[in-house]
Amino acid sequence: MIAFEDLTPGRVFELGSVTVDRDEMIAFARRFDPQPFHLDEEAGQASVFGGLAASGWFTAGLWMRLYIDELVSKADGLGSPGGDEIAWPAPVFAGDHLFASMEIVAARRSSSKPWMGLVTLRAWMRRGAADSDDVVYRARFTGMFGSREHPRP
Amino acid sequence: MIAFEDLTPGRVFELGSVTVDRDEMIAFARRFDPQPFHLDEEAGQASVFGGLAASGWFTAGLWMRLYIDELVSKADGLGSPGGDEIAWPAPVFAGDHLFASMEIVAARRSSSKPWMGLVTLRAWMRRGAADSDDVVYRARFTGMFGSREHPRP
Repeated sequence: MIAFEDLTPGRVFELGSVTVDRDEMIAFARRFDPQPFHLDEEAGQASVFGGLAASGWFTAGLWMRLYIDELVSKADGLGSPGGDEIAWPAPVFAGDHLFASMEIVAARRSSSKPWMGLVTLRAWMRRGAADSDDVVYRARFTGMFGSREHPRP
Repeated sequence: MIAFEDLTPGRVFELGSVTVDRDEMIAFARRFDPQPFHLDEEAGQASVFGGLAASGWFTAGLWMRLYIDELVSKADGLGSPGGDEIAWPAPVFAGDHLFASMEIVAARRSSSKPWMGLVTLRAWMRRGAADSDDVVYRARFTGMFGSREHPRP
C-alpha cells in the first residue's frame, strides 16, 4: 500500500492513457456543460475551438479516473480539499489519445492530524504521447494520504 | 443576450439549486472517481467524511450545469482557459439541496482579440439555503465572453 511517506517531492508517476469517446463526451456535456460547442459539430467548428470540443470537466474526470486506477487505488487516499490551478490550454476532441501523468511537488504531515499527509501534486494530460508537448489539461491540487509511520487512531 | 460589457465586477448572480441524486452521484464516482468513500456507505462512514460523499468533480459539474442554464446559455460564452482556485471545504451527501451562486471579480477586454472579454468569477455552492454559511464548493476561474461593442469578425 502506498503511504504518505512514499510520496516524496520530485517523484513522477505515469498514469496511463485513455481515448476520448465521442458519445460519452457529448453525454457528459449534455448533463453538466451544455454549451453548443460541446454538443454539436457545426457549433464547434464555428467556435474558438475549431471543432466539437470536450467539456474541460470531462477531461478533468478522465485524468481523475487514471489517477485513481494507477495511484490512489493502491494507496491510503483520504480525499482532497482542493487546489490552486486548473487549466485547459488546448481543446480536446473525440478520438484524442490522452496520456495522464503527475508529479509530487510538496509533501508535509498535518500538524493537527499526524496520521494524515498533505501532498501537493501537479497533474497533466498530454495528447498523442506520454512525452508530448501538446498539453490539454493541467492542474495542481492537494491530496490527503494516510501515514505508515503514524496509523490513524 | 448577455455580453462581456454586462459582466461588471461586483455583480452577483444566483444560479438556482439542485438536489443531489444518490444514484447519479454514485454512477459518476464509479466512472470518474472510484474511491471507496464515494461508492459505498460503510466505507464513507469509516472515512474522514463520515458518510457516503460525492466526488468533488460531481459537485463541480452540478455547479457548472446551473451556471450554464442560468447565465452562459443567455450569453455569448466562449469557454474558459481555467482558474486558480477549486475547493471542497465540506463533503456533499446524497439528498443535499445545493444552491449555486457566482460573483464577477474582474473583467478586461483581450488585448489581442478585442471581441473577447476575460471575466474572472468566483463560484460557490452552499448547502441548505442560498445564503447558508455551509459552503461545499468554491472556485475561481476565467470565463471568456463575446463583446457587444466589438463583434467577432
